Amino acid sequence: MTETSDSDFSVVALAGGVGGARLVDGLDRALPAGALTVVVNTGDDFQHWGLHISPDLDTVMYTLAGLSPEDRGWGIEGDSFHVLAEARRRSVDDWFQLGDRDLVTHLSRTGALADGESLTQATADLCTTLGVDRPLLPMADEARPTHIVTQDGRELAFQEWLVKSRAALSVRQVRHLGTSTPSKTAVDALIAADLVVICPSNPYVSIDPILTLTGITDQLRKTTTVAVSPILGGKAVKGPLATMVPEISGREPSAEAVARHYEGLLNGYAVHHGDSFAAPFPLLETNILIQSKEDRVGFALELIEFARSL
Amino acid sequence: MTETSDSDFSVVALAGGVGGARLVDGLDRALPAGALTVVVNTGDDFQHWGLHISPDLDTVMYTLAGLSPEDRGWGIEGDSFHVLAEARRRSVDDWFQLGDRDLVTHLSRTGALADGESLTQATADLCTTLGVDRPLLPMADEARPTHIVTQDGRELAFQEWLVKSRAALSVRQVRHLGTSTPSKTAVDALIAADLVVICPSNPYVSIDPILTLTGITDQLRKTTTVAVSPILGGKAVKGPLATMVPEISGREPSAEAVARHYEGLLNGYAVHHGDSFAAPFPLLETNILIQSKEDRVGFALELIEFARSL
Repeated sequence: MTETSDSDFSVVALAGGVGGARLVDGLDRALPAGALTVVVNTGDDFQHWGLHISPDLDTVMYTLAGLSPEDRGWGIEGDSFHVLAEARRRSVDDWFQLGDRDLVTHLSRTGALADGESLTQATADLCTTLGVDRPLLPMADEARPTHIVTQDGRELAFQEWLVKSRAALSVRQVRHLGTSTPSKTAVDALIAADLVVICPSNPYVSIDPILTLTGITDQLRKTTTVAVSPILGGKAVKGPLATMVPEISGREPSAEAVARHYEGLLNGYAVHHGDSFAAPFPLLETNILIQSKEDRVGFALELIEFARSL
Repeated sequence: MTETSDSDFSVVALAGGVGGARLVDGLDRALPAGALTVVVNTGDDFQHWGLHISPDLDTVMYTLAGLSPEDRGWGIEGDSFHVLAEARRRSVDDWFQLGDRDLVTHLSRTGALADGESLTQATADLCTTLGVDRPLLPMADEARPTHIVTQDGRELAFQEWLVKSRAALSVRQVRHLGTSTPSKTAVDALIAADLVVICPSNPYVSIDPILTLTGITDQLRKTTTVAVSPILGGKAVKGPLATMVPEISGREPSAEAVARHYEGLLNGYAVHHGDSFAAPFPLLETNILIQSKEDRVGFALELIEFARSL
C-alpha cells in the first residue's frame, strides 16, 4: 500500500524549508488526494531586486512539483544563471542566487501582488502553473519578517544572516516582526484538521513564525499534533539549527531539546534511532532521515499510523 | 573633425525610442564631453511581471552603451531568453519580450525604486554600471502614462496598444495621465541649454509627453530649438507614426505635418532630401536617414552647424 485508506482523514503539515519539504513530499505521496494541506513559513520572505521572494514556499512547491535539485535546498534542478551572470557583470548585488527559471516564480508572484492579489492567491496561481494540486498555504498574507539578533547585538533580516553572512554570526534571539494575523485559509485548514504534523524544520526560524501567529497554538492544543525531530544524533540534517539550539536554549542540540521547545503542544514525537528520551507523550523511534523519495513515503506512512494510534 | 570645438556649448536632446536614440548617439559622438544632456520620454513606462520597465530610457541607454541590436529597436544585442522561455512554459503573460541580460536593468531599477530612489537616480546608477557617462534624464520622476484612445473608443496603456495589440487599432487621441511635474534636473538642463534638439521621435507619443509637462514649452520658446523630422518621404523610419498623423491631425504624413504639430516652438528644422516646404523658419534639407553609426555622427555635426547658424 502506498497511501492510507481513510479519505476523510485530513492532515495539516506546518513546514519550513528543505526538511519540511521532504516530509511534505512523503505525506503528499502517502495520503489520498485532498487529505493534505501544507501551511508554510513566510518569515524568510524578503525583497531582492524589487522582487518578493518566498524561499520556503518555493522549496516546498518545487519539491512537490518534482523540480527540486537533489544536492541543494533551493531553486530548480538544471536551472541556468544567465540573469545572475549579467548582474555580476554589472556589479549588481548578487548574494542571493536566482536561476533563470526560478526567476519566473518571483516575477509572477511580484506581479500578482502588485496587481492586488493576496500571497495566498499568488501561491495558488504559481502551484497551478507548476502542476502542484495539493493546497500550499502561506502562513500569513501580510509580511512577518524573521530577524536574527546576533550575540554582538546586531539585528539582521533572516536571509541576510543565513545567506549573505552564511549564518556565521552567533544568535542571541530570533524576533518575529510584522503581522501576527494568520491567513484565514490556513486557520480554516487547521480547524478542519484531524492531525497536525510539525515538520522537521528549524523550530526557531521556520516553525515559531507560524506558532506565534494569533490563535495557532490554541488550535494545535485542540488537535492531535505530532512533530518530527529536526535533530538526529545531536546533528541537524541541514542548516544552522545544531548551533542555534545551545545559543538560544542553553541546551545541547538533541531531539529532546526541540521537543521541550514545543512543550504543551505535542501528542506524539518521531525521533531517529537512538534519540529516545523520557517524554510525557509517546515516541516513534525509527529512521527519520528521509533524503530519498522512497524513505519519504515509507516514513510518512509510519508517521500517520503512529499518529492515528494516539 | 569628429566633434565641435566649443566646449561651453550645451545641448539638450528630447528623445523617445529608436529614432531618438540614434540621433542621441550621433550627438554624443559629435559633441565634446559634458555638452550633451538627454531628456527621455517616460510616458511608455509600465509595470510588467511586477517590474518597472522604461522602454525609451533603455533604448537610449543601450544605444549609448553600444549594446543595441542593429536589427531591432529594443533589448540587448545577442541577449538570451531563458527566463522568457520558462514564462511561456508556465503560460505566464509573455507579450513583452524581456531578455535575460535586459532583465537585470528592470530588476535593478525596480529594486532601486523600491528602496526609495528616484527614477532619475536609478537611471544614473544603471548608466554607471553600463559605462554610459552622458547625463540621461527621465522627463519626470513620477508616473505619466501615455494612453491611446482608439477610434472605437477603447483606452489602452501605450505598450498594450503598441506591443500587445501590435498598433493595429486606429488612434483617435493620445492622453497623458499622471504627473505634470517635470524632473527638476531636466528643467535645470533645459534652462542651461544653448540648443534644444527635438529628436526624430514620434511627436504624439514620444515628444508630447515631455512637451506637455509644466513649463517645458515656455522654456523651449526662450531657447534655440530645432527638430529633426521623423517622417521621410511620407514614411516613418520605424513605428506607427505614418498612420497616426492622418488619424490624429487629419493631415497627410509629412515632415511639414510634424512641423505644424510643433508650431511656435521651432527655430529650425531638418528634413530629408525632397521634403522641404514653405516654412516660417530655416530648413536643413539633407540626408536624415541615420541608421549607420557614421551617418549618425555626420548628420549630428551638420545639425549642430545648422543650429549654431540660426
